[in-house]
Amino acid sequence: MPVYAGDPLTPGVGATKGAKRLAVSEAPTLTKIPVLPISYADARPLLEALDGHVAPDAWRGALPITYHLGPGPARVRLKVEFDWNMATARNVVAKLAGAERPDAWVIRGNHSDAWANGADDPVSGLVALMEEARGVGELAKSGWRPKRTIVYCAWDGEEQGLLGSTEWAETHADLLRRNAVAYVNSDSNGRGFLFAAGSHTLEKFVNEAAKDVTDPQTKLSVLERAVARALVDGDGRARRAARERGEIPLAAMGSGSDYTPFLQHLGIASLNLAFGGEDAGGSYHSVYDSFDHYTRFGDPTFEYGVTLAKVAGRVVLRLANAEVLPFEFGAFADTVDGYAREVARLADDMREQTAERNRLIAGGYFQAAADPRLPFVAPKALPPVPDLDFSPLQGAVAAVGRSARRFARVSGAPLDADARRAVDEILMGLERALTRPNGLPRRPWYVHHVYAPGAYTGYGVKTLPGVREAIEARDWAEAGDQIRVVARALADFAAAVDRASDLYERRAAGST
Amino acid sequence: MPVYAGDPLTPGVGATKGAKRLAVSEAPTLTKIPVLPISYADARPLLEALDGHVAPDAWRGALPITYHLGPGPARVRLKVEFDWNMATARNVVAKLAGAERPDAWVIRGNHSDAWANGADDPVSGLVALMEEARGVGELAKSGWRPKRTIVYCAWDGEEQGLLGSTEWAETHADLLRRNAVAYVNSDSNGRGFLFAAGSHTLEKFVNEAAKDVTDPQTKLSVLERAVARALVDGDGRARRAARERGEIPLAAMGSGSDYTPFLQHLGIASLNLAFGGEDAGGSYHSVYDSFDHYTRFGDPTFEYGVTLAKVAGRVVLRLANAEVLPFEFGAFADTVDGYAREVARLADDMREQTAERNRLIAGGYFQAAADPRLPFVAPKALPPVPDLDFSPLQGAVAAVGRSARRFARVSGAPLDADARRAVDEILMGLERALTRPNGLPRRPWYVHHVYAPGAYTGYGVKTLPGVREAIEARDWAEAGDQIRVVARALADFAAAVDRASDLYERRAAGST
Repeated sequence: MPVYAGDPLTPGVGATKGAKRLAVSEAPTLTKIPVLPISYADARPLLEALDGHVAPDAWRGALPITYHLGPGPARVRLKVEFDWNMATARNVVAKLAGAERPDAWVIRGNHSDAWANGADDPVSGLVALMEEARGVGELAKSGWRPKRTIVYCAWDGEEQGLLGSTEWAETHADLLRRNAVAYVNSDSNGRGFLFAAGSHTLEKFVNEAAKDVTDPQTKLSVLERAVARALVDGDGRARRAARERGEIPLAAMGSGSDYTPFLQHLGIASLNLAFGGEDAGGSYHSVYDSFDHYTRFGDPTFEYGVTLAKVAGRVVLRLANAEVLPFEFGAFADTVDGYAREVARLADDMREQTAERNRLIAGGYFQAAADPRLPFVAPKALPPVPDLDFSPLQGAVAAVGRSARRFARVSGAPLDADARRAVDEILMGLERALTRPNGLPRRPWYVHHVYAPGAYTGYGVKTLPGVREAIEARDWAEAGDQIRVVARALADFAAAVDRASDLYERRAAGST
Repeated sequence: MPVYAGDPLTPGVGATKGAKRLAVSEAPTLTKIPVLPISYADARPLLEALDGHVAPDAWRGALPITYHLGPGPARVRLKVEFDWNMATARNVVAKLAGAERPDAWVIRGNHSDAWANGADDPVSGLVALMEEARGVGELAKSGWRPKRTIVYCAWDGEEQGLLGSTEWAETHADLLRRNAVAYVNSDSNGRGFLFAAGSHTLEKFVNEAAKDVTDPQTKLSVLERAVARALVDGDGRARRAARERGEIPLAAMGSGSDYTPFLQHLGIASLNLAFGGEDAGGSYHSVYDSFDHYTRFGDPTFEYGVTLAKVAGRVVLRLANAEVLPFEFGAFADTVDGYAREVARLADDMREQTAERNRLIAGGYFQAAADPRLPFVAPKALPPVPDLDFSPLQGAVAAVGRSARRFARVSGAPLDADARRAVDEILMGLERALTRPNGLPRRPWYVHHVYAPGAYTGYGVKTLPGVREAIEARDWAEAGDQIRVVARALADFAAAVDRASDLYERRAAGST
């Protein structure tokens, strides 16, 4: 997943009938060590058979045994069977052409495949999507048409690596890069609070939709409940947004659901929406993810399925019908400014820690502090952390801020149909400005330079991933390169926002 | 223990034969709920019999059961037996009169009683003390006499509440307040690093002793090893002291061993010395605290017992023989300045948190963030935290700093015997300046206003306890009072240091 999503045999291209495929032995995302989750009953005899040092606290589970690190003394015979047969994945894609802008697509998706019963993952989200699609279908039957095209998708093969969504996105990559307005994803859903993640250019827009939907339990708005949660339990950033603006920030997206090919491979502004926090876990990806479990512990009244349909449905319809696409750049500018400060502080902290570590090594302090009766592995001195030149990034972040403020100032002006279309074209392309065709180092499939799953964090996001991971890996040359790469992407983004502002100002100048 | 140490029936006075005793029913330190540690095997059926809510993570132990909070449904018949008989505790006290200053006592103690076998607690420390006493005895047999009096003590009844030391200290309170130079405690000892705690007026002195003793495993000095540990594993304060001065800071003392009556009831400068950190635990206060366990896991070669004797013996002999007592005030001034900043920040943080909490209550946010299916207990608004006037404390801390710097400047001057004696008298009394006869609120036995065990933290220390605990309890009137009380104590301390400096300067003026 951190290298590329989708069919392991067709990186970057659609796995259609005639596609050129890698041999299984060549596919880099088919790991050489087989991995399979097993139950604790199966794991226990294996864990009990280990000897060697007692495992440190953080490595111990909760089984009533003493955890050891190994090796041996037991030997395990493992019989490994693989099914290398080809199977067909089937996406369901329904399109309602827009009346005014059929070439501007608002895409809404949720996967339909499951590991086992799948009541929570994915059906709880899929039913909301289907109810939205049914509602839009009812409208269409009455003769109504959206301004822009609406595409509803049910993806197959998500659990095996976002297969259905990725292969569809790769197959139609050029079309999507031209036509996609945004991709709106959902997946598992449950009782509780709105969790929203995605492109920060849509943060204000999502907050507005959440303001207009009622929470079924409290009759507050969905936004009011989420803001309350942020104030009571949120981290610093969430609390600040709640207190200062009465809003919830979008979380940055790593991976783990079908938004990845849209956002991080094609550069399409994307969202992920879900309710939760008052549902019980424990059934995820297991045979216990059943209708019975879901109606006891997930969303017993299905009210949050309805609420998800109301929020995501509003998001889709408002994107489809907006006079001009409702992107906003203040939240993005603030957020990316925060990321830029984080990576600079990361380098500063590493510089200080490295210098301290090297001082301790040079002074023999690690050796002096070590227990002479235990094995002592002397830590190695590390090259000092150089001063990185963050000024290109800082300059680009400042430019994004200026462009965002200018756009906020001018974008209220009325536009004629041609100008609206021209502004729309620019806004639709903006997220693409954050991608570079060469992608991230060692994983060219991931072309987005603001959001990516970490190379070593599973689904967990790394923001400004090129810069951040180069610093973490102490590759200072690469960090310097990546600072310039992301700075250029952000500068392109700012320039594109300015072109949209130009259109507003030209219109305003023309109208005087 | 947090209310007073020693015999529960004789608070504040020695439990001698004819002493006036409280009735058992009146003794406030005999708790009304009997408490007894039991083994996990005995605890398990009791824990298993509980029903009700599942216990939150932090309340769970490591038994392979589901922890419940109760109540019931099981009922337990508990048969409680007490032995209220009177028993005699026997301290062993050996005194070697000083040749020049017999009325200046350096006191060294370790308890001799144990819960069970006691190889670690207390014998590992007691044997070091006995070896010191033997060495001093050998010197005395050769005709040598210390300048000041040396008192070696083995305390009884420590485990039941510091009985032997406390009753001895209470019995001889006036004599000790007049004559005590310092009290040097030890208790359990093991393999590893020097851990030193106590009066910060002795911090520099303890570092000098640690510099002159060799660590048996590494052949570095005991100080070098402790500094290495501070640099590699220490908290911010320890790391700073190690880096900036090549020293280890003394930890502040709460309670848990026999220094408490000396330091916190009589105001005698005290130390606690121990080695450890490379010994294994698990036997503390149990029948497993055996010779066998200690020689496997405690200090297998007994080298750290010898090393403790070398450090504590040097401390005792240098205190007994110093030309002028080796107190120093820079470390104390810095440390108490840190404490004063901590309590001010504590009040500031509580003010901000209280205001935020009240805002959330007023806005209904706790209710809005609560799961409607779970019981919700509305938090109550708290009175706002007033601005406390810390200026008396800050002024007194500044005065201590000025006095410490002046003393450091002038105290090198040579003194004649009379002046030395006069300076000694002042230095011996200095720790008493930090006590007030009324003691701490609700626990008058504890008279020291810089160090005390917390009222609710067991052995754990609270520094500036009157102020800190009043703030924690949101008793702002008491906090204001206690700021003034500790400020006066610190001002008295500074004034006494100035009187010692006056003696040096007068001498210097006389000599020109």
